[in-house]
Amino acid sequence: MPLTRIPSGIPGLDEMIEGGFPFPSVILVAGSAGTGKTTFGLKFLCEGAANHEQGLYITTLSEPTQWMLRFASQLDFMRPEYFGEEIQYLDLGAKMRDMTSAQLLEAIEEKIAEVIPQRIVIDPITVFGTMLKGDYRSFLFDITTRLKNWNATTVLTGEVSPGEMYPAEIAYAVDAIVLLLQSEEAGTRRKYLEIIKMRGTNHQSGKQSIDITGANGITVLKARF
Amino acid sequence: MPLTRIPSGIPGLDEMIEGGFPFPSVILVAGSAGTGKTTFGLKFLCEGAANHEQGLYITTLSEPTQWMLRFASQLDFMRPEYFGEEIQYLDLGAKMRDMTSAQLLEAIEEKIAEVIPQRIVIDPITVFGTMLKGDYRSFLFDITTRLKNWNATTVLTGEVSPGEMYPAEIAYAVDAIVLLLQSEEAGTRRKYLEIIKMRGTNHQSGKQSIDITGANGITVLKARF
Amino acid sequence: MPLTRIPSGIPGLDEMIEGGFPFPSVILVAGSAGTGKTTFGLKFLCEGAANHEQGLYITTLSEPTQWMLRFASQLDFMRPEYFGEEIQYLDLGAKMRDMTSAQLLEAIEEKIAEVIPQRIVIDPITVFGTMLKGDYRSFLFDITTRLKNWNATTVLTGEVSPGEMYPAEIAYAVDAIVLLLQSEEAGTRRKYLEIIKMRGTNHQSGKQSIDITGANGITVLKARF
Amino acid sequence: MPLTRIPSGIPGLDEMIEGGFPFPSVILVAGSAGTGKTTFGLKFLCEGAANHEQGLYITTLSEPTQWMLRFASQLDFMRPEYFGEEIQYLDLGAKMRDMTSAQLLEAIEEKIAEVIPQRIVIDPITVFGTMLKGDYRSFLFDITTRLKNWNATTVLTGEVSPGEMYPAEIAYAVDAIVLLLQSEEAGTRRKYLEIIKMRGTNHQSGKQSIDITGANGITVLKARF
Amino acid sequence: MPLTRIPSGIPGLDEMIEGGFPFPSVILVAGSAGTGKTTFGLKFLCEGAANHEQGLYITTLSEPTQWMLRFASQLDFMRPEYFGEEIQYLDLGAKMRDMTSAQLLEAIEEKIAEVIPQRIVIDPITVFGTMLKGDYRSFLFDITTRLKNWNATTVLTGEVSPGEMYPAEIAYAVDAIVLLLQSEEAGTRRKYLEIIKMRGTNHQSGKQSIDITGANGITVLKARF
Amino acid sequence: MPLTRIPSGIPGLDEMIEGGFPFPSVILVAGSAGTGKTTFGLKFLCEGAANHEQGLYITTLSEPTQWMLRFASQLDFMRPEYFGEEIQYLDLGAKMRDMTSAQLLEAIEEKIAEVIPQRIVIDPITVFGTMLKGDYRSFLFDITTRLKNWNATTVLTGEVSPGEMYPAEIAYAVDAIVLLLQSEEAGTRRKYLEIIKMRGTNHQSGKQSIDITGANGITVLKARF
Repeated sequence: MPLTRIPSGIPGLDEMIEGGFPFPSVILVAGSAGTGKTTFGLKFLCEGAANHEQGLYITTLSEPTQWMLRFASQLDFMRPEYFGEEIQYLDLGAKMRDMTSAQLLEAIEEKIAEVIPQRIVIDPITVFGTMLKGDYRSFLFDITTRLKNWNATTVLTGEVSPGEMYPAEIAYAVDAIVLLLQSEEAGTRRKYLEIIKMRGTNHQSGKQSIDITGANGITVLKARF
Repeated sequence: MPLTRIPSGIPGLDEMIEGGFPFPSVILVAGSAGTGKTTFGLKFLCEGAANHEQGLYITTLSEPTQWMLRFASQLDFMRPEYFGEEIQYLDLGAKMRDMTSAQLLEAIEEKIAEVIPQRIVIDPITVFGTMLKGDYRSFLFDITTRLKNWNATTVLTGEVSPGEMYPAEIAYAVDAIVLLLQSEEAGTRRKYLEIIKMRGTNHQSGKQSIDITGANGITVLKARF
Repeated sequence: MPLTRIPSGIPGLDEMIEGGFPFPSVILVAGSAGTGKTTFGLKFLCEGAANHEQGLYITTLSEPTQWMLRFASQLDFMRPEYFGEEIQYLDLGAKMRDMTSAQLLEAIEEKIAEVIPQRIVIDPITVFGTMLKGDYRSFLFDITTRLKNWNATTVLTGEVSPGEMYPAEIAYAVDAIVLLLQSEEAGTRRKYLEIIKMRGTNHQSGKQSIDITGANGITVLKARF
Repeated sequence: MPLTRIPSGIPGLDEMIEGGFPFPSVILVAGSAGTGKTTFGLKFLCEGAANHEQGLYITTLSEPTQWMLRFASQLDFMRPEYFGEEIQYLDLGAKMRDMTSAQLLEAIEEKIAEVIPQRIVIDPITVFGTMLKGDYRSFLFDITTRLKNWNATTVLTGEVSPGEMYPAEIAYAVDAIVLLLQSEEAGTRRKYLEIIKMRGTNHQSGKQSIDITGANGITVLKARF
Repeated sequence: MPLTRIPSGIPGLDEMIEGGFPFPSVILVAGSAGTGKTTFGLKFLCEGAANHEQGLYITTLSEPTQWMLRFASQLDFMRPEYFGEEIQYLDLGAKMRDMTSAQLLEAIEEKIAEVIPQRIVIDPITVFGTMLKGDYRSFLFDITTRLKNWNATTVLTGEVSPGEMYPAEIAYAVDAIVLLLQSEEAGTRRKYLEIIKMRGTNHQSGKQSIDITGANGITVLKARF
Repeated sequence: MPLTRIPSGIPGLDEMIEGGFPFPSVILVAGSAGTGKTTFGLKFLCEGAANHEQGLYITTLSEPTQWMLRFASQLDFMRPEYFGEEIQYLDLGAKMRDMTSAQLLEAIEEKIAEVIPQRIVIDPITVFGTMLKGDYRSFLFDITTRLKNWNATTVLTGEVSPGEMYPAEIAYAVDAIVLLLQSEEAGTRRKYLEIIKMRGTNHQSGKQSIDITGANGITVLKARF
């Protein structure tokens, strides 16, 4: 019985992965600063919203909702009418300072139980490493376990340092790893997407050139077969 | 007196190692994310199941059994009728959070005593490093010691960071080390298998190209003699 | 609705970023010793001052005001009449030794509330890492959160070690990252500016040659389109 | 007065070191997983056994004696009749978990006093680093001191990580360092032996190609003079 | 108003920095062992002494004054009559073992208040890192703050490990960084000087070849303009 | 007044350093395992002994005196009649386990006061790092301070890991650094000597080829002027 799949929202990506992300599954999207992780996550939610799927965007940055919306609204695909409707919002950043990791897990699950999303984004998951310190690895173990009990595909974004491929501390626990890469070539920065693993999926391997614009988000430029 | 050997289940591998894995023995299969460690372990168990050998799959991920089965069932060789019969399942992930390393060892041995497997897989062993921390090296010492008291061949999978060869903290204690490697060549990812050590075995050395598909699992493409 | 933007004060930079820095926003300007971070920050404030915008310069170095002014006055664009008027000054260095991170945050917000600046510079933010140690990452999380509650564009300068790109511990929390780079080429040092990320902005990518002089501060020499 | 020397048992090695290992002395044989350290140590003991010298093999792995013998018996030179006679066996692994470093030293010396060996192997010495942690460096200092009070040549094997030359923490205290190396050349693994130091001996320097087989153990292929 | 400048005493250097070191200022002179840091500092003081400026040499090495003088007197420019007159001496090394960092700061300021020097050398500043450990970064912050309250130009020498550029922990706090470098080229060691930053100064950039002799100290061989 | 100098005992070295080591002074001789540090130190003492200077050899290895003598006697220049006469011996290794660093310093000074040596060797100084841990850097500071109060030239040998140049933690405190190097070239090991610093001395720079034999110890093969 083939896996159920949902479109990723990234033009050119679904052809690389047998038609879309497994549903349900937990996907890690990793990259250094400025590689388009948030754009990836928002497009993933908007794709669902356009198909009347419920989405949940969990941010770990602590910033006013208006601040976030002001920047997100520069993305042409990010329709304001989705927000608060097809795309619900949970600001975990504001809560992170005063909560234990158990309370954080509970807050996430409470929101999921309330929204019943088919698509979830936690952006970025790596901030927990900054704030939880000692408990971080256990927390990653627990949160991926919990997410696998819901009927949703979750995108976890992971911010890495330049030169680091992906946050190794969570790689073993996710069902798929998608890298967003940039490298300097002939004085300019080229951007790439690469799928490192995807359970149950004969995925294309190797780096694929991508384009990132405010109009279309991320597009996989040429998929080699 | 030559060593007893059992087929690994990986086409092309047995020719490299005098006919198969020593029985009993403890084998480390190491690689970074997406190199096929779980596929290796499952094929190893299915090979036994096809020959009516008892297998035991111990996962250290904490995920619902159905979640795991859904992905595993995408592998053509993973026959559903094996599961719960020739291949027994122990979810250590769910227990890991509340158990001491002594209790974990006991839980493993209890299950082995109940199942009496000829083939065991622990996938991945490196998760214990995430959860046990201070006790991890002692635990690895103890678990390999315990496994050597059973009449079985055990495959321990080890997840390493990109660029790392194998988890050095367990290398000394196992009877064999098989690497699953990937490298970027001309914009694509090539995959390889390499045998670093195998006690009592004149094994082939050097990297061998492999192919990984959902249909056949891992195949060693060309074995150089 | 397009983002409000303000001129950066760096000739050639605004053309790379759709006309200027988003207002409000938090910008990280990172570079190793001697790459022009302070010159960048002061020019940013003078640009505002020339347009009758209120500026606030927060230094984390502990040095006499006259000491700082003596060096700053060597920059031709740094008009003495701005100082104490359009450009207010807060010496956090002197206070840092005796204050908790909570008190530091309060001191910063008190000054912002008093001055009501449109442009803020904290130079360099990385000194807090030296003095706060254990609390540093939480402090960075908190200070960026607080700054996002004010109607200002803030430039945080970050001093990195040679070979390091930017201080990764704050990268996730800022809206933009501008690198000031130097590399040794044919026995001399070439200087560059590169934009790594800027939320809501289709920015130019890749290294741009810059010139630094006391007369003009930093100038982007050739912007490739 | 020239040093007394004993044959190493490795064909081609004695010619490189003025005829054999100094007697008494402490020799470190270092290499990563799969380079032949155990084979080296067993051949060294068998060489002595063939000449009616008493040997003592101390293993720090904790594995059943039968498990070890099963693999060792695959080496053609490892005659079963030596075992328990010319080659005595001490399983330190089983004791390591419950003993202090002082008790371990005592256990080793007690066995030496009982066996009165001319040749001793401790295989691998580096496991103590895993189990003793804080006391490890002191323990290495103490064990080499104690071994120098006996009239024996001791081979300590040391397992290093790939890319590491030898365990630096013990190098200063031994009388000789022999490296077992492997490098990847043209897709295959080449194996080498190199003598880094040997007190009182004009030894040959540089890497020498070696061959490792179950039939002959390690052979130095071409010794350059 | 241009900065007041004083000659550095290093032939060829002043032309690179608009005529000399800013007065007052704090200058870091960094280099690995044997690059001429002490020679630089002594020449800087002798240049002042020849112009009847008061100098203060603070050593953090603990060695008898005669021991130091014996080596310093090998430098032709180091006139014995300066010593104890134009060049005063403070042996901080002897005191460092029993003093807190607060007491060390007090001892330095007391001596400065007594001598009223225009030129100060602390050689090497990095020894405090060895002896103060936990307090080192705070101490560096405090000592540069204190020095900026005196009307003097201070040279802090910093010893780095081979391959390290400068001690990053103090770089942000000084007004200028001068590197003394050596590299191996064609079997010999070439020596260079490079100015990494100098506040308020349009300095020359890139490595300049230098010569070091006992007769003349350090000379910049060819300054490229 | 030129420095008093004593011959180093290493043929070819004195020509590189204005005739010999400064007397008194503290010399660091650094190198990885097998580079000839002990041979250097013993030859230095024998050179003195031949000129009726008193020598003191302090070993930090804990090994029976006979063990050490057996190996040392393989060096042709090491005349047995020197031992116990012109070359006195202090075995610090045996005492190191039970003594505080203050007691160790006292034991060293007591022996120096008893022997009144002109030449001292401490071989290797880096073992204290293994045994003293937390106090190591302070101990190095103290021991070099103490040695500078005696009228002797001291050679401290320092064992470094492969690829490390010298032990940076002591480099600032010694008067000279001599490196013993080995590199792999065309499959063999070439050995070199290089002088990194020598106070008060116009020394030759760059690597010099050396030869090491039991007959002559270390010889500098070709000194380039």
